[in-house]
Amino acid sequence: MRKSIAIDMDQVLANFYKKLCATCNEHFALGYTDEQFLQTRPQDFPPEQGKRMLELMNEPVYFRDLEVLDADAAAVIVKLQENYDVFIATAAMEVPGSFQAKYDWLHEHFPMIDKQHIVFCGTKSIIHTDYLIDDSPYQLKAFKGTGILYTMPYNEHVEGYTRVKNWQEIATFFEKQLVK
Amino acid sequence: MRKSIAIDMDQVLANFYKKLCATCNEHFALGYTDEQFLQTRPQDFPPEQGKRMLELMNEPVYFRDLEVLDADAAAVIVKLQENYDVFIATAAMEVPGSFQAKYDWLHEHFPMIDKQHIVFCGTKSIIHTDYLIDDSPYQLKAFKGTGILYTMPYNEHVEGYTRVKNWQEIATFFEKQLVK
Repeated sequence: MRKSIAIDMDQVLANFYKKLCATCNEHFALGYTDEQFLQTRPQDFPPEQGKRMLELMNEPVYFRDLEVLDADAAAVIVKLQENYDVFIATAAMEVPGSFQAKYDWLHEHFPMIDKQHIVFCGTKSIIHTDYLIDDSPYQLKAFKGTGILYTMPYNEHVEGYTRVKNWQEIATFFEKQLVK
Repeated sequence: MRKSIAIDMDQVLANFYKKLCATCNEHFALGYTDEQFLQTRPQDFPPEQGKRMLELMNEPVYFRDLEVLDADAAAVIVKLQENYDVFIATAAMEVPGSFQAKYDWLHEHFPMIDKQHIVFCGTKSIIHTDYLIDDSPYQLKAFKGTGILYTMPYNEHVEGYTRVKNWQEIATFFEKQLVK
């Protein structure tokens, strides 16, 4: 039986933090580099800045012009679809204004994803696939299948998951699963 | 361990068909009663009308002012939450323009639902709960847990599922599960 894979969007398909870094620098007169910003945690920002960041992210076009994180992702997904059912599962309920932009972004950059295979959710405990590729240890812990952690500076301390750091490693991981 | 329930929106929580009937009568100069409209099938409409219906549904406010289908639903959900994790799972990917309206509608009429427990999806094969209450045999067939069919005229011929025809019956069904 074909197995299924759910793929997170931000920091797995889309370079969300790059845009968020520029937004924070602009709105709060900060000077983070992209690399520095990836080391920040939400609690490093005063609550009023956190609240403002959510408001900005909730604007209808905020997620529409994110860069693709890894140029290999689209080709790897097409290859994965030969042997797996591929879904997109993105936590979007904190920023409901982002729904349409995220949907349109996926259609532009990953048109091979059937729209029936897109899920906007809160907790990923509800996702019923065999695998979930995510940068969030919190979501992987809630998920009931096999979690694959997409390495980011803010999750480097986390143990207990298979790690990937780019889409070529994702391709290799799933090729190996097929010959097991 | 607490079990989980996913609840569909249209024709389980929201009276979508009532508005769609009025929309069709208005735009296509038809004269359906609500009862007659519930007996129609998509293929009863010419393709250009089906296309136009989708366009109208995709307008940002279309789903915002639907009536609640059953006035008992909110109280029953509050009661269910004592013993079950309750999620909302709505197929929305054909009408991405509806996301925000559906989200706001839920918040207005069912504020007891944690936003982390809301899912906008395509196929409900991806929903990982113990139960799904839905009016669509197609979605119940895709779902991997126990399906509960919310009776509507267009699904009366379907066999193989526990049926409920209102929210009091849903309350009774889940009370019985607890004493099993």
